[in-house]
Amino acid sequence: MLRAALAAGRPLLARPGPRGPLARHGVGASAGAPAGGWVLKTPKGTRDQSPARAALRDRLLAAVVACFKRHGAAAIDTPVLELRETLLGKYGEEGKLIYELQDQGGELLALRYDLTVPFARYLAMNKITNMKRYHVAKVYRRDNPATSRGRYREFYQCDFDIAGQFDPMIPDAECLKIVHEVLSDLQLGDFLIKVNDRRILNGVFAICGIPESKFLPTCSTVDKLDKMPWEEVRTEMIGERGLLPEAADRIGEYVRLHGGLDLVERLLQDPKLSQNKLAKEGLGDLKLLFEYLALFGIAGEISFDLSLARGLDYYTGVIFEAVLLQPENDHVEEPMGVGSVAGGGRYDGLVGMFDPKGRKVPCVGVSIGIERIFSILEQRVKASKEKIRPTETQVLVATPQKNLLAARLKLISELWGAGVKAEMLYKKDPKLLKQLQYCEDTGIPLVAIVGEQELKDGVVKLRDVATRQEVDVPREKLVEEIRRRLEP
Amino acid sequence: MLRAALAAGRPLLARPGPRGPLARHGVGASAGAPAGGWVLKTPKGTRDQSPARAALRDRLLAAVVACFKRHGAAAIDTPVLELRETLLGKYGEEGKLIYELQDQGGELLALRYDLTVPFARYLAMNKITNMKRYHVAKVYRRDNPATSRGRYREFYQCDFDIAGQFDPMIPDAECLKIVHEVLSDLQLGDFLIKVNDRRILNGVFAICGIPESKFLPTCSTVDKLDKMPWEEVRTEMIGERGLLPEAADRIGEYVRLHGGLDLVERLLQDPKLSQNKLAKEGLGDLKLLFEYLALFGIAGEISFDLSLARGLDYYTGVIFEAVLLQPENDHVEEPMGVGSVAGGGRYDGLVGMFDPKGRKVPCVGVSIGIERIFSILEQRVKASKEKIRPTETQVLVATPQKNLLAARLKLISELWGAGVKAEMLYKKDPKLLKQLQYCEDTGIPLVAIVGEQELKDGVVKLRDVATRQEVDVPREKLVEEIRRRLEP
Repeated sequence: MLRAALAAGRPLLARPGPRGPLARHGVGASAGAPAGGWVLKTPKGTRDQSPARAALRDRLLAAVVACFKRHGAAAIDTPVLELRETLLGKYGEEGKLIYELQDQGGELLALRYDLTVPFARYLAMNKITNMKRYHVAKVYRRDNPATSRGRYREFYQCDFDIAGQFDPMIPDAECLKIVHEVLSDLQLGDFLIKVNDRRILNGVFAICGIPESKFLPTCSTVDKLDKMPWEEVRTEMIGERGLLPEAADRIGEYVRLHGGLDLVERLLQDPKLSQNKLAKEGLGDLKLLFEYLALFGIAGEISFDLSLARGLDYYTGVIFEAVLLQPENDHVEEPMGVGSVAGGGRYDGLVGMFDPKGRKVPCVGVSIGIERIFSILEQRVKASKEKIRPTETQVLVATPQKNLLAARLKLISELWGAGVKAEMLYKKDPKLLKQLQYCEDTGIPLVAIVGEQELKDGVVKLRDVATRQEVDVPREKLVEEIRRRLEP
Repeated sequence: MLRAALAAGRPLLARPGPRGPLARHGVGASAGAPAGGWVLKTPKGTRDQSPARAALRDRLLAAVVACFKRHGAAAIDTPVLELRETLLGKYGEEGKLIYELQDQGGELLALRYDLTVPFARYLAMNKITNMKRYHVAKVYRRDNPATSRGRYREFYQCDFDIAGQFDPMIPDAECLKIVHEVLSDLQLGDFLIKVNDRRILNGVFAICGIPESKFLPTCSTVDKLDKMPWEEVRTEMIGERGLLPEAADRIGEYVRLHGGLDLVERLLQDPKLSQNKLAKEGLGDLKLLFEYLALFGIAGEISFDLSLARGLDYYTGVIFEAVLLQPENDHVEEPMGVGSVAGGGRYDGLVGMFDPKGRKVPCVGVSIGIERIFSILEQRVKASKEKIRPTETQVLVATPQKNLLAARLKLISELWGAGVKAEMLYKKDPKLLKQLQYCEDTGIPLVAIVGEQELKDGVVKLRDVATRQEVDVPREKLVEEIRRRLEP
């Protein structure tokens, strides 16, 4: 039927689907439901970036990339598509949120779910054992979108990772330093970086009598402590995960602890926990980590928090997450949840899962939650009434009389040739007022006017849009004068 | 079975698929076939970008974006995913190459095939009638990959488009000017820009007695004239498209013509063609276009070529394509096909297909074929033995004795704080020689050395890697001195 409609040349747009989900999430539904009943929209949980948003996003990404480059990272890119088998079995329970492509003959494909698994695949495939890389790209999750809090189904990740066998905690400390630098550079207000270690969590589970097969699911449940009270987490542990109530209670005594180096040292003295080999290793490493963080001058903003678990299966050691402390809700109707804006950790086993001989490459990395930060910055810009210029045009080439299109085309061509950012209106005979109005509307600072008299005199009238001052500039000096005027 | 394996916690990698297609196209097949029989690879027709490639690609994209910004375009972004209905019926025969996502409940989705249809969807959805935008992003086509010639299934497009109702041919001329500027800026050697007009082609078909229903398929066949000789194109017209041999021959007399403004004027006098309303309009516009291109100083590189048809259905007026004239095959085993490196045209009906009331927004745009250009530049870099530095690190922080990790961590933290791009080795006690060797290997120009003596004296030894000269710099002057040394 579809093909028949196509053949008949009728315009084809999405018919309204079940209204429930669309209306519930309100994604683009209002923007694109014209009278005829077509639904003109982007897929659920995705959005277009308008010029103003794209400009703000570019500014934000540039700041993050500058930090990654300051730390000596190289960029790589991997395809948005991966073989399904590359992704399967890497994400634990979250794996069900992977977008799969239709089998159209050939390989079975899926959209990448994060940048970490593709990085591990890249390392194994190219037999690289040592690399510091960053990767800024989109990832895809069939999650329930919460667009007001910056949670989308298509979103950017900004990842920095260090792969290689090194002395303990030096790369880990650098990852935390990067989180601190990015959040400081972006002036997002006060924040806290929580750290924990999967080995400590596993040690806690072990001494509380949890069987090893239940470590990962219990971890997923502990991870919810930042969103639900302990009582609910406890109920899930017992009901869904099948833990004994006493075991859950014992876990509760540990995972509700948080502090600094003092807590690390206290737990190193804990009679039960210090007997657990893994936990002891983890605590020893955290002690070292705090030492390095003190040298970086950032230990004060780091909290050792035993409730931090991170949802993903692949972490094996230190894990961390940054949260903003002051909600930016002054100008927002629905207050913005203070959420995680960066996270990461050590995943020493992931590359080995891709190596035919299981050779391991230890890795640690961090992912900056750019979409949530973007939501915050966007609301801040909106509140401040700052206008972001989506273009960088320096000069509008204008004419004050009719029949001068040729003069404009020649002059603008000269300006482009000299590297000046220039525009003109696409009209044969635009009114001068319209041309000046265009500059006001779009923030173009200068107008280069060529009229009959200017052509005769070999000059161009250069007008400053803000001051409305005009001076005649010899044509051969025009580029130089424009450059001089626009110097910062 | 897959799920069972996952549940059992076994690592899962792609098993070798049918060898035929993989071997035939040679995509990553050799890189990722370890002994165990796993296939560790990126999907067919896709590839990873290593740091050197990513750095070169960033440089290339920056040059293209600089040109787009010089012409006053604003950036937008749209999702990689679109509703299938948004894409269906927009690409004619090529539509079968669209990647569709599996139905996982919810909307039926596909990967974008180009950036033009999403742009038209964006305009219609936001009721925008006037916009100059660029968009640099990946698109997806289930085409037969030809990776040596830069044809991939995932590839970047760099698009510049002007939407709006303007005076004829002014935006069209700017698109051609942009193609000219980009290809000149990138110093790709001599090139030729072919132009034609769909209305002229349709006029030719009409006066040759082709029924209107066969215009588009005939167009697709004519489009093959750059890859196959006229005889074969003629055979396809008769065999596959069902044209009469005499009609095909009459078409052949026109579509083999090419020239400049002179040919436009000759065809305006053609007794048959000039009687066709559409063709006459198209020829009149081309005449105007050549006038504007002369004012831009680029008419000499533009060829009016009646064989140019462009494969996509949505073009309605002027169409164009740029080809490189000199194959860059000096250092390549298999000579590189001289192919299209940019293309575009006018598509006045596309936005209307998305508007419930069919309101049209005339558009013209150009897409720069960045992947093919990238292949050329990559081979040129390889031939020139130029080494592209994938990182920008300015200083390595080093220590000459043991037990100085703390000193390195403190100093590097100071440098990062001052915005200096700095690295250190992730070892507690690295040998000085290893640290210096790292600079040689990665192109880091300076080493900041802190030893016991330097700490005592309050200085840092600054070493120039190239000259091996070392000077003691007071610690508080270090940043200033590094900046001074690295000034361009």
